[in-house]
Amino acid sequence: MSNTANHRITLIGLGTIGMSMAALHLSRDNTIVDVFDTRPDLEEALLKTLPIFLVSSSSRTESQPIEVTSLISSGRLNIHSSLETACASATIVQEQGPENLEFKQTIWKKVEAIAPVSAHFWTSTSGISASAQQQLLHDKTRLLVVHPFNPPHIMPLIEIVPSPETAQERVEFAREYFSIPGSRHRPVVIQKEIPGFVGNRLAFALLREACHLVQEDVVTAKDLDTILMASLGPRWAGNGIFESYQQGGGVGGIRAFWDKLGGTMQEVWDGLGQVSVAEVKEKVVRQTDEVYGTLTSEETRREKEERLREFLKVQTQSY
Amino acid sequence: MSNTANHRITLIGLGTIGMSMAALHLSRDNTIVDVFDTRPDLEEALLKTLPIFLVSSSSRTESQPIEVTSLISSGRLNIHSSLETACASATIVQEQGPENLEFKQTIWKKVEAIAPVSAHFWTSTSGISASAQQQLLHDKTRLLVVHPFNPPHIMPLIEIVPSPETAQERVEFAREYFSIPGSRHRPVVIQKEIPGFVGNRLAFALLREACHLVQEDVVTAKDLDTILMASLGPRWAGNGIFESYQQGGGVGGIRAFWDKLGGTMQEVWDGLGQVSVAEVKEKVVRQTDEVYGTLTSEETRREKEERLREFLKVQTQSY
Repeated sequence: MSNTANHRITLIGLGTIGMSMAALHLSRDNTIVDVFDTRPDLEEALLKTLPIFLVSSSSRTESQPIEVTSLISSGRLNIHSSLETACASATIVQEQGPENLEFKQTIWKKVEAIAPVSAHFWTSTSGISASAQQQLLHDKTRLLVVHPFNPPHIMPLIEIVPSPETAQERVEFAREYFSIPGSRHRPVVIQKEIPGFVGNRLAFALLREACHLVQEDVVTAKDLDTILMASLGPRWAGNGIFESYQQGGGVGGIRAFWDKLGGTMQEVWDGLGQVSVAEVKEKVVRQTDEVYGTLTSEETRREKEERLREFLKVQTQSY
Repeated sequence: MSNTANHRITLIGLGTIGMSMAALHLSRDNTIVDVFDTRPDLEEALLKTLPIFLVSSSSRTESQPIEVTSLISSGRLNIHSSLETACASATIVQEQGPENLEFKQTIWKKVEAIAPVSAHFWTSTSGISASAQQQLLHDKTRLLVVHPFNPPHIMPLIEIVPSPETAQERVEFAREYFSIPGSRHRPVVIQKEIPGFVGNRLAFALLREACHLVQEDVVTAKDLDTILMASLGPRWAGNGIFESYQQGGGVGGIRAFWDKLGGTMQEVWDGLGQVSVAEVKEKVVRQTDEVYGTLTSEETRREKEERLREFLKVQTQSY
């Protein structure tokens, strides 16, 4: 076991996100990772999936592969069959179990009873607030949302969403954890609990209009995807949306833009689609299935990940 | 004058978009470009701006710069002081004048009287439909919107938006013009006239929620931009939005995703901000000014353009 480790992370739930999180933590040199999941094939799944994720993870290159078996034999990765031993020495306990409120409330109550009192409690949930999850805890200051974007070992965004009870130093600890020099992660603290947090709310806002436009036959699902990739995707890969309007608005920035085109924008805002999922589902699913098929091959998935890494490389280059 | 030219494009209005359009057309080998603008510094502006745009335009490299003076002396670029001579031999007349309905209706009426009857009429408008612009034309089958995304000489998207009267072959001509082998442009035909077309509607839908979240102090303008660049920007640079949900939804794609999370998505859709420009303007402008300043330096603009070109390069690479 490494003597230089200063973070010992217990991961509860080793599905796709959990595996990706394990790779994220193991790509650092100062960590020990303890994993717990009730799936019977846990070790097999780790041996199969982790090497793929570790190669594409932050600081590693293909010439320096991490052997999962050597991680296990050196004590950097420990597989547990009980929650108790998994949490016994944790500095951080992070769960990515089912998106089910009762499951999360119950697991945190158990974890509180067995983990060190100093341990930080992180939930990777995309939808259940820390306020809701902490209900059965005695100490509600320890729990916060640490929401990654898929796939976490590549995508930089980490949304940190405390409840009103979460201690400020717990928030700062999480922010610092993802801000170490060389980290490709970009942690952002969300100031208020809100469904979908920020990233997914922005995605869903655009998706609703996308569905509306397909529903109304303004454009096909395929053409809409082409439009997004040929304009807004690359723009927002390089510039934030406020930054884009500030710099694209000419002299005077976004104020001048709104002085001139605020009326047009308001007209569009007022006319945005107010569709429901039920209304648009069949048509959108049918068109999406036709273009992309329902099954994504492992080869396509890897190509997409490789491309994503290349975009992120361009982001950090100087010109 | 080149004997191999098979497109002769008259550009009316040589502001930023017009200059960029001139670069786009001149980056092809089979074009002659005639320019008309009432600005007194037209030639000076062309000599200053075109070389910058041409270097960063489609098929040219820095080792093959195009000299504006040689374009003029060879007859590939002609500067006109009258609309009549500018349009006399056009195969395409493209206007990017003021976004003013009366101006556009009037200019098209004049152009119809002087251009060859076969000439295509393209408007680069971002907001005034072909249906509205064509009102004073005798032949309403010739006019269509050909809306580029800024900056047109780099950004691939071209939204082609016909009116119900536009002839189908005029639509096909425009689509083919931007689809030649080696073109980095991606023309998409929008099937119905709608305010903002598709690209800007999608951008405005996301912007409204972004403004709402800043207005409600969920996140700052700066943090929101970070979130976008650290997640959705690079994702949508590589994958369309429907493609993303199809491939990220696991087995069963977007249908399985909605079966499982449709309720959560509907909850977010129902709670999206319904803000007005007037409500959010001051706070958003103040925060945006604080982060980015109101003036964008030429150096920053060029760096952003260079980065944008790199993203687009990654899009077309194989992995």
